[in-house]
Amino acid sequence: MTDFKKLSEQECRKIKEDLLQRYREFQSRRLTLDMTRGKPCSEQLDLSLGMLDGDIGKAYLAQNGLDCRNYGGLDGIPAAKSLFAAYMQVEPDELILGGNSSLNMMHDTILRGMVKGMMNGATPWSQLPKVKFLCPSPGYDRHFFICEYLGIEMIPVDMLEDGPDMDQIEEFVAGDELIKGIWCVPQYSNPTGVVYSDNVVERLANMQVRAKDFRIFWDNAYAVHHLVDKPRPLKNILVACKEAGNPERALMFGSTSKISFAGAGLAMMAGSQINMEWIKNQMAFQTIGPDKLNQLRHVLFFKDIEGIMAHMKKHAAILKPKFDAVQDILERELEGKNIARLSKPQGGYFVSIDTMEGCAGAVVKKAADAGVKLTPAGSTYPYKNDPLDRNIRIAPSFPPLENVQAAMELVAICIQIVSIDKISA
Amino acid sequence: MTDFKKLSEQECRKIKEDLLQRYREFQSRRLTLDMTRGKPCSEQLDLSLGMLDGDIGKAYLAQNGLDCRNYGGLDGIPAAKSLFAAYMQVEPDELILGGNSSLNMMHDTILRGMVKGMMNGATPWSQLPKVKFLCPSPGYDRHFFICEYLGIEMIPVDMLEDGPDMDQIEEFVAGDELIKGIWCVPQYSNPTGVVYSDNVVERLANMQVRAKDFRIFWDNAYAVHHLVDKPRPLKNILVACKEAGNPERALMFGSTSKISFAGAGLAMMAGSQINMEWIKNQMAFQTIGPDKLNQLRHVLFFKDIEGIMAHMKKHAAILKPKFDAVQDILERELEGKNIARLSKPQGGYFVSIDTMEGCAGAVVKKAADAGVKLTPAGSTYPYKNDPLDRNIRIAPSFPPLENVQAAMELVAICIQIVSIDKISA
Repeated sequence: MTDFKKLSEQECRKIKEDLLQRYREFQSRRLTLDMTRGKPCSEQLDLSLGMLDGDIGKAYLAQNGLDCRNYGGLDGIPAAKSLFAAYMQVEPDELILGGNSSLNMMHDTILRGMVKGMMNGATPWSQLPKVKFLCPSPGYDRHFFICEYLGIEMIPVDMLEDGPDMDQIEEFVAGDELIKGIWCVPQYSNPTGVVYSDNVVERLANMQVRAKDFRIFWDNAYAVHHLVDKPRPLKNILVACKEAGNPERALMFGSTSKISFAGAGLAMMAGSQINMEWIKNQMAFQTIGPDKLNQLRHVLFFKDIEGIMAHMKKHAAILKPKFDAVQDILERELEGKNIARLSKPQGGYFVSIDTMEGCAGAVVKKAADAGVKLTPAGSTYPYKNDPLDRNIRIAPSFPPLENVQAAMELVAICIQIVSIDKISA
Repeated sequence: MTDFKKLSEQECRKIKEDLLQRYREFQSRRLTLDMTRGKPCSEQLDLSLGMLDGDIGKAYLAQNGLDCRNYGGLDGIPAAKSLFAAYMQVEPDELILGGNSSLNMMHDTILRGMVKGMMNGATPWSQLPKVKFLCPSPGYDRHFFICEYLGIEMIPVDMLEDGPDMDQIEEFVAGDELIKGIWCVPQYSNPTGVVYSDNVVERLANMQVRAKDFRIFWDNAYAVHHLVDKPRPLKNILVACKEAGNPERALMFGSTSKISFAGAGLAMMAGSQINMEWIKNQMAFQTIGPDKLNQLRHVLFFKDIEGIMAHMKKHAAILKPKFDAVQDILERELEGKNIARLSKPQGGYFVSIDTMEGCAGAVVKKAADAGVKLTPAGSTYPYKNDPLDRNIRIAPSFPPLENVQAAMELVAICIQIVSIDKISA
């Protein structure tokens, strides 16, 4: 392959002509493919159908005689708390089971921080002149949207190979009392697929923080969502924070949205007992308790953490060919051309492409014009503003394999066309 | 029966001796009965078990091809919106389906009011010097708890036979811009069982209100929870508000908690399209959507509004003997003695007793000492403060009939003893 930046004008023209020919062929196929949402495909959802056929109609009594159909159980039934404490690698009294959405639990936690403060005695954030969050970027758009919605100022932090740039973070949090939190997707980070190194986790747990009510929002959405047999383990942030003498610093979140059903799974949060009590005392004003029958369904279906791990291997078997197709096609088309860098995630739901600077928006538009919808450029940055206009997020899980293949070929063509235009401009 | 207040000292002594004898007999039975929570009994929950045995495992696709197992559907699937719009007597685009808790939707609506304001352009309540709510009392404790939690000042309003005292309400809201809301349980009001008259509904819809962002929190929790065959109809508050030119004034709430499963039902809210858009635009930051499989379960099980109405007749058949027992025993024991007034609800979940002034707390304590737990005295008033210390809330739905009977006999005995002590003091 040839470095595009070293091509002669004539070579450029020739290559672009070929690419435009291929692009027009795609246009004539009138595709309508959606690569925007990291949602499970139908085959993945089928894996959990047994949960709905089960004997829950007769099994509504949890082991301790609690009728799961009735009111009660603010933080979950014991059997489900036990299972998902193992999943989150915490103690059952460090866990709260919620409804079907971990986003909901994060949102509510921050909203309570605004109105009531993040801990006993802390000033409600809405009474401060300003509240700021650190946002490792590229990151998860819905995290950023919560901040924007609530007027929380977002400070971008660079994502490196092993997690966010800790030098930047340490400097920020040591000096500014108004920095109250940081968003982290520590395993298979959205969208880069980065797994935080032990060193990064340690530094997050140990760093000197000016704000006493600073919280790490540890959205471990893909904790068991591996594509490889021997995944790199992630250090437990709660344990690290306890060892560092900062037990209240970490709030962990997770869900079974991409384990059982995306719309009907279980959400959960975890943290120190003090934090969980603080949250539960406030949740008691909000609800009598979450859907315990759905908790029971999950317990009856998965049985134990080994059941979950075995189940996730089936997900991986469905997802891996799609992720492989993304890698294979993009590498085949782009390798050596010096116009894009590609993430190689070992799990999670996304592949991240960094194009040349100033090209991402144009690529997304060009793909859309030929029928392939990608996540809008910029979405992975605070305020939807990718300052270098280069990050593109690919979500290969939902479409059938042949659509992933077609979409990726088109994306590769678009990247090349836009890059050539940029180089020759 | 003899008016206790006209008894001679000797008669008093004699009657009290008999009562104490009966009370001691109760104590010797070492009962542990809980009459505090308005939750369905096991037989009621059995009525909906078919919902869990159903063919949902194969029926996860809603009519429009939406996969209910996956993400999406912020305000509900079309089939469920259609069914529950009929239930709430609104249009489908005036309805939002939530998770399993209408309390949760009320709480979140008010919390958003605090942080973002109640409508486009309105000042967030947390930025005002104070926010006040009108609280018809006795009322629902969890409504009052939300206000107390958020520092919203509660102003009690008297409950009359046909709803809250509208003269008081109209005077309050016309003069005070900081009064931003009122709590209403318009049908079978908790705990009095009062059904708001058409006149009250009309006056609520038409009254002059100083605060432009004033909202009626219309918690119609017992809309179809009748104990009689021909219930008095409740006027539709949304229609009334529209006709009055105040379409945004009413926010309606409901749930199937006491139709299907108390812990795994569907919650909903309804109001003008403008209000629903305002809420949905904010909900979009909080969640991708509620549990659609549970919506589908409800649609498959109930089919249509007639299905719900037929189902509620089965609930009534279970509940009515318990409510009858409460009436029969309390009337038999107390009638003519001029020491207590009893509500005679035609639906809902509670019976309300007004004792002589200053007696409720002592009655609840005395019942507890003999093993019958009642809702703490004062709970039905803002700040748990019943100024006349006379209201007792009875929740007969959950315990078996014989326990309801035993508990009521004991309560009647306690009321008589405490009243005699009061009279002779």
